[in-house]
Amino acid sequence: MIGKYTKSLLLENKETFMIPAENVATVLYSHPLEHALLVLSKVGYSKIPVLDSSDRFVGLISLADIVDKMMDLDGFNSDVLEGLSVSDVMEVNVATLKQEDDLEDALHLLVDASFLPIVDEDNIFEGIITRKEVLKSVNHLVHEVEKRYEFVPKENTIEEELNI
Amino acid sequence: MIGKYTKSLLLENKETFMIPAENVATVLYSHPLEHALLVLSKVGYSKIPVLDSSDRFVGLISLADIVDKMMDLDGFNSDVLEGLSVSDVMEVNVATLKQEDDLEDALHLLVDASFLPIVDEDNIFEGIITRKEVLKSVNHLVHEVEKRYEFVPKENTIEEELNI
Repeated sequence: MIGKYTKSLLLENKETFMIPAENVATVLYSHPLEHALLVLSKVGYSKIPVLDSSDRFVGLISLADIVDKMMDLDGFNSDVLEGLSVSDVMEVNVATLKQEDDLEDALHLLVDASFLPIVDEDNIFEGIITRKEVLKSVNHLVHEVEKRYEFVPKENTIEEELNI
Repeated sequence: MIGKYTKSLLLENKETFMIPAENVATVLYSHPLEHALLVLSKVGYSKIPVLDSSDRFVGLISLADIVDKMMDLDGFNSDVLEGLSVSDVMEVNVATLKQEDDLEDALHLLVDASFLPIVDEDNIFEGIITRKEVLKSVNHLVHEVEKRYEFVPKENTIEEELNI
């Protein structure tokens, strides 16, 4: 559990870490794969969310997924993209969060993902939470916390072992 | 400045966040661009360090850099890779750190980069520090700090404004 002072400092400058859907590049699962390649090469992100036509989150697609598909024994062949759509190579079974989920869950999941999709109860895509945004708040936390609070060791502390 | 208790908790399970060079995929700046594309699509990272033949750090190369180079007005054309080497598209003037640099610098720079190259005084590549590794320690910090310490507000605190 994250303590209340720590959590408050992490969230001090915003209610949530979410970048809203309208500011996130996405593709449809039915889009041609070459379209996804174009979008990915232009937006500067290596992986983006994939939606269906009702804005439901269905997966993620990365530059690496597409380029890997184009590699064959003879090297690199872009002809294989013909006829393929995003759904043929996207990553599915991706961990998602709801806006009301705890910051704790987000921090754990972000160890293994550079961003997490946020969805509502109908799986409608609402935005993403990124390591970048979280790190901004971590910087705030680590710089402020000992300016604002005196740290008094509780009993059974292992402070001595830390050689502070 | 990061306080001593906070810093100690962040570094509790390791001396440094560095992943050593031998565990990091790299390419030479003189390598053919298609080789870099192959490496990038296989290692699962979207961007890797570029070295010279003396192991000095010279830049970064990303899948997006290469794919962007292959896009022309007619769409996607892999023929343009012929004859190009990594040095033709790599990103240069990249921020680096030294092992003795402060954790504070790393935390700030990692807001804008998913990893940072670590070099020695001769610019020899020694490893990388990643957002992922830092986030593991942040999880440890935020879960432990209020178990170990009582937070006592200092004077002039803005605690009341935080509504704790």
